[in-house]
Amino acid sequence: MPQPTDFSFSVHATDGAARTGAISMPRGKIRTPAFMPVGTAATVKAMYPEQVRDLGANVVLGNTYHLMLRPGAERMERLGGLHRFMRWDGPILTDSGGFQVMSLSALRKLDEKGVTFRSHIDGTAHHMSPERSIEIQGLLGSDIQMQLDECVRLPAEREAIEKAMRLSLRWAERCRVTFGEQPGKALFGIVQGGDIPDLRIESARALADLDLKGYAIGGLAVGEPQAVMLAMIETVEPHLPAAKPRYLMGVGTPDDLMQAVSRGIDMFDCVMPTRAGRHGLAYTRHGRINLRNARHAEDTRPLDEQSACAATRDYSRAYLHHLVRSDEILGMMLLTWNNLAYYQELMAGMRAAISAGRLADFIGETKAEWARAEAERAA
Amino acid sequence: MPQPTDFSFSVHATDGAARTGAISMPRGKIRTPAFMPVGTAATVKAMYPEQVRDLGANVVLGNTYHLMLRPGAERMERLGGLHRFMRWDGPILTDSGGFQVMSLSALRKLDEKGVTFRSHIDGTAHHMSPERSIEIQGLLGSDIQMQLDECVRLPAEREAIEKAMRLSLRWAERCRVTFGEQPGKALFGIVQGGDIPDLRIESARALADLDLKGYAIGGLAVGEPQAVMLAMIETVEPHLPAAKPRYLMGVGTPDDLMQAVSRGIDMFDCVMPTRAGRHGLAYTRHGRINLRNARHAEDTRPLDEQSACAATRDYSRAYLHHLVRSDEILGMMLLTWNNLAYYQELMAGMRAAISAGRLADFIGETKAEWARAEAERAA
Repeated sequence: MPQPTDFSFSVHATDGAARTGAISMPRGKIRTPAFMPVGTAATVKAMYPEQVRDLGANVVLGNTYHLMLRPGAERMERLGGLHRFMRWDGPILTDSGGFQVMSLSALRKLDEKGVTFRSHIDGTAHHMSPERSIEIQGLLGSDIQMQLDECVRLPAEREAIEKAMRLSLRWAERCRVTFGEQPGKALFGIVQGGDIPDLRIESARALADLDLKGYAIGGLAVGEPQAVMLAMIETVEPHLPAAKPRYLMGVGTPDDLMQAVSRGIDMFDCVMPTRAGRHGLAYTRHGRINLRNARHAEDTRPLDEQSACAATRDYSRAYLHHLVRSDEILGMMLLTWNNLAYYQELMAGMRAAISAGRLADFIGETKAEWARAEAERAA
Repeated sequence: MPQPTDFSFSVHATDGAARTGAISMPRGKIRTPAFMPVGTAATVKAMYPEQVRDLGANVVLGNTYHLMLRPGAERMERLGGLHRFMRWDGPILTDSGGFQVMSLSALRKLDEKGVTFRSHIDGTAHHMSPERSIEIQGLLGSDIQMQLDECVRLPAEREAIEKAMRLSLRWAERCRVTFGEQPGKALFGIVQGGDIPDLRIESARALADLDLKGYAIGGLAVGEPQAVMLAMIETVEPHLPAAKPRYLMGVGTPDDLMQAVSRGIDMFDCVMPTRAGRHGLAYTRHGRINLRNARHAEDTRPLDEQSACAATRDYSRAYLHHLVRSDEILGMMLLTWNNLAYYQELMAGMRAAISAGRLADFIGETKAEWARAEAERAA
């Protein structure tokens, strides 16, 4: 098959609001619904890039904030771009940097022009405007770029949420102008509006009018209950163009993923599987297992003997327990690997279930096995 | 070929005092001179066991002190032994635990019977006698076991060195009795005597009389200059049985290995390649490279484009520099992998050179390339 020269999205099957399909672009195909492992600082932590690819991940996420500070955007361009730097040939999505400016940096000041902040690494001063964010993402070589937005932590007052949503809309337009026409690459807009339905709808409609290549829902998984997050997805979904991919940013647990997919989400990213893997937590077909717990000390069973992932299938829980208790790097390597494998397996399971028109059954079976195993562990 | 049922050592070629050959035992063949990666707490830090094997390592070392404290010797036996626990099918050599009792534990008290100490992890009290050390190594399932000895840090007075050497000899005899006859496994004695030639010779001769399966030289690389270490090897070597393997414990730099091999040493272990890999240091054909140094920030060359190791050949120095500066786990993974690959490559190079009768040339060429590359970096 000839390599596609442009960015396109096609839906192959639907099941209720859920859909499965693929994004095609010059660097490869992204099967959806897709989970994107997070490669914050040009590395999916504790994983070789070949392992990430072999798990079936089609796309990884890079964090603009981290990369602009180290190694730096212009330096990255001189080095041949992020793909070459981190040895990832497939598509890369980069966030705008805005979220981490707000959560990690010091002395930030936000106005219409953008945001001024100091690096959390060395205190140097930086300015990020919508235009500079797109410029940086271009220097990195990102395939899917995100608009700069303002994300409000919930709970928050309507006035603050509305102000941030409208600013994000104006920034979306400025990002669109800066991005221009880049065949084979995509700029995504980000729906804001907190937990307020009419603001979410206004944001979604205004972004849809900009005719971007895809749409993210931002400002969720920032402290609100899962029910609020799901309600916001249901509110927004009818107002997003059905022919464009929908990306729920920063989400989430395996259950979050299933609930969001069944409400029409196509793409996810989250640090949860990688971060949990560095803290002794395993996500498995049998639920979430805390390897630090003494109950595993003499358990010679693997996490899941039916898994295709060596970390999951070949190492005993007793050994994983020992590695976690001993703060051994191999423990982090194996649990991160296991967790990303499980997340990819879950996405593949959902894609197959949607194609077969049985997503609800798949979700029910998955949760039943979590509950069964959890009860067994509690017994 | 049928699996050997006993432990045997054969020398295939010699070149001056250097020799190359193989240890055969039921769990596999160890080509000598051999470098044994250190798997302190049942893991060669930051490496999957398959990677260690694929680098050509035939044997790994486990630390009795660490393993007796966590997960515990009796627990390890219940779990099926160290090989199964850490997924290493080849031979495992364990130290006696004595060295780390003296360097890591608190409130240690040493007498004729053995050593009493408190765990550095949780302060629990433990006793280690020669008999218990061998018992623990048996519970772990170790293939090559080391006698308990007392190792004196240099510089030290003759009286202290002599006392420790004689105690170590008495403990060797007790370990031999406890070990008994174990076909397919081996107990090694440890030559002590500090930097005092007549004590070293006395120790070596007395141990040779015990007719053990192999002999280690202990108590070196404990703070003395390289010249002292090499002089002690030269002193001891003529008094060790030529038909038994000789193991220099805890050594060393690539140059140490070459100097010791040319003086008749067959086996080594050292944390240097793994520890250095976690601190941004790469051992390569081009010498030791500190990846933390800013000079590497835009260097797109790999550590060695001719290497068979992916870590060495496929990742740019700029990327490794970035990972090290960012304290990324992948940086430790890649540099550990590189370092162990280089150590194994160096040993393979020496084995081939000895077979070809050109070890001195090999050492000269290796050091010339280090010097050339070092001068280039300094320019």
